[in-house]
Amino acid sequence: MNKRYLMAPGPVAVAPEVLAKMSEPIIHHRSPQFSAILTRVREDLKYLYQTKNDCLILASSGTGGMEASVVNLLSPGDKALVIRGGKFGERWDELCNTYGVKAVNIDVIWGKAVDPQEVKKALDANPDAKAVFVQAHETSTGVKYPVEELGKLVRERPATVLVVDAISALGVYELKTDDWGLDVVITGSQKSLSLPPGLAFVSISEKAWKLAEKAQLPKYYFNFLKEKKAIEKQTTAFTPAVSLIIGLAEVLRGVRATGLPALFAHHRRLSEGTKAGVTGMGLGFFSTVPSEAITVIKAPEGIDGQNVVKILRDEYGITIAGGQAQAKGKIFRISHMGHLNEWDMIIALAAVERALNQLGYPIELGKGVAAAEAYFAQNK
Amino acid sequence: MNKRYLMAPGPVAVAPEVLAKMSEPIIHHRSPQFSAILTRVREDLKYLYQTKNDCLILASSGTGGMEASVVNLLSPGDKALVIRGGKFGERWDELCNTYGVKAVNIDVIWGKAVDPQEVKKALDANPDAKAVFVQAHETSTGVKYPVEELGKLVRERPATVLVVDAISALGVYELKTDDWGLDVVITGSQKSLSLPPGLAFVSISEKAWKLAEKAQLPKYYFNFLKEKKAIEKQTTAFTPAVSLIIGLAEVLRGVRATGLPALFAHHRRLSEGTKAGVTGMGLGFFSTVPSEAITVIKAPEGIDGQNVVKILRDEYGITIAGGQAQAKGKIFRISHMGHLNEWDMIIALAAVERALNQLGYPIELGKGVAAAEAYFAQNK
Repeated sequence: MNKRYLMAPGPVAVAPEVLAKMSEPIIHHRSPQFSAILTRVREDLKYLYQTKNDCLILASSGTGGMEASVVNLLSPGDKALVIRGGKFGERWDELCNTYGVKAVNIDVIWGKAVDPQEVKKALDANPDAKAVFVQAHETSTGVKYPVEELGKLVRERPATVLVVDAISALGVYELKTDDWGLDVVITGSQKSLSLPPGLAFVSISEKAWKLAEKAQLPKYYFNFLKEKKAIEKQTTAFTPAVSLIIGLAEVLRGVRATGLPALFAHHRRLSEGTKAGVTGMGLGFFSTVPSEAITVIKAPEGIDGQNVVKILRDEYGITIAGGQAQAKGKIFRISHMGHLNEWDMIIALAAVERALNQLGYPIELGKGVAAAEAYFAQNK
Repeated sequence: MNKRYLMAPGPVAVAPEVLAKMSEPIIHHRSPQFSAILTRVREDLKYLYQTKNDCLILASSGTGGMEASVVNLLSPGDKALVIRGGKFGERWDELCNTYGVKAVNIDVIWGKAVDPQEVKKALDANPDAKAVFVQAHETSTGVKYPVEELGKLVRERPATVLVVDAISALGVYELKTDDWGLDVVITGSQKSLSLPPGLAFVSISEKAWKLAEKAQLPKYYFNFLKEKKAIEKQTTAFTPAVSLIIGLAEVLRGVRATGLPALFAHHRRLSEGTKAGVTGMGLGFFSTVPSEAITVIKAPEGIDGQNVVKILRDEYGITIAGGQAQAKGKIFRISHMGHLNEWDMIIALAAVERALNQLGYPIELGKGVAAAEAYFAQNK
């Protein structure tokens, strides 16, 4: 039977009731009806973000939100620190290079987290750095970065803002935008929010707004100040992705009802249960600071991780993700984001066991699953 | 009963079967399954565009497609001609200014079309202009510009490309990308394609690709060359708006089955029937070269067009559009794009008759509708 399971770190599985909501007749974006939805959505986003800051909604993928943050905060020739320990850290560097921003890269070995002391040193050595660009969670390696610590470091420097790509972190685990001093926080629709791709979100602190008012890099479609004016008029600067925002309203209503603590506990549980299963089958992890968003499994000796992904997808109908760039073939990644539950994790683990066997790597069938079952039974 | 009718020039009404298609489970964007859909969609887009050129798909509103065309074709200090006769012509000028492109504006009175002779003069006076930016149809005024004529003028100049914002034109009426020499043609999902907003499309000629290879303006998210490479790999440079592309595949399948001539005839019929109704009720038109995309009605003496729009929306549940900027209050606009039929046009006309009466402007109820009915009966 042609049933498919989506367990990649974005796009993720969307709940049928959200898909149904998005299939209601389209409404006009300049109407009191849509303005009311936008206004509620923006309030609900503040709850998700744990912030009082404005939250912008852009019609783009998450990368659009990253680009928006560079061009709206900086001017040509500005200096910025970039934490570069994976594909998305590299993206910050590429964005800076594209726009003539001098990026001072703090390189981190893929699979490891940045040491806040390294960032402190770089900040001390570069007091003129206007921004620190970092991931909350580097999706390509499954590593959580210590953004709370970074917030403390940057907060005391009045001329520097902390810009956090939280695309696969916000809504997954604790991330206190205001309390931690995260000036700009970016996320997307196709991760923890369990929506289709096509929306990016950006929260902006007072400190960041001051920078935005002076930023000279060119921008048109991604324009923070125009969006701020649009918020005052309960609209968006350009035609919004109406159907996705209708879905977003539905999802955020659910987030409010569930509450952030329960949402974080859900991801933690899926993550810990899956990781127990991986350990149970004798496999190891790529990330030294694993996240609750995904489990990144090291491909065992002699096994190409891409082949595991292929067998799951082509033979079992299950989509997980492989590694990217230098991690290609070395890892495979199971998402805990999306409309997923513990039973889906059991499926993923069972599929990995079978695929590895098929590839000639001996794993006792059911061993990983048993460990996960035990975890889930004991942690309700 | 809370039934609503959407007849604005974008977002437009989406067919229930397309909404249902988009509510199917999300699939991963890096998968053979999605690649197959992308490849077919790109072929179908070529049919819609009447082109052999590559057609890029971007996750953004139409403005993103316009910005993409500026930053991917030009370099700082380049010169470009801009036809400026409405809100979207102004947008070309603003985009040029944003990126340090010297815009030579050819100003056109709102409601009138540009005279190709004016463009010829400007081209002769500015042989160093690298691009001519124009709308095929200026949505803010309802005017069709003579892009076929402009194509002839620009085609013979090897150093200049013609960039056409066809957001509310492509798929509405005849627009021959290749035959007319339209180098870059932009459209969006929320107009004639009858999809929700969130996708922009850009076709690029060989001549334009040559310019793109040398263009020095900064860009990251909107990057033609990266998208070209992605096309070769049957994917997109960044995470695509998966659900909208699934809907697009469904719509384009329909376009192929219907055929362009029938699609154009459909819009022409709705347009002519509506215009017959408007004339029948004794009202006039704002545009001297009316399009098949929308009917732009001049608000009669003493009537604020915005009030017509408000009564329709708030009292009748019908969304049409008012005027923008200098046309605000002077006009109201009925769309022929979207999942609409002749009976919807009857509704719109009946509603306008009633609203004008309500506002104290005497129109014999049913007079416009009668004229439209007669047209539709005689033109099957």
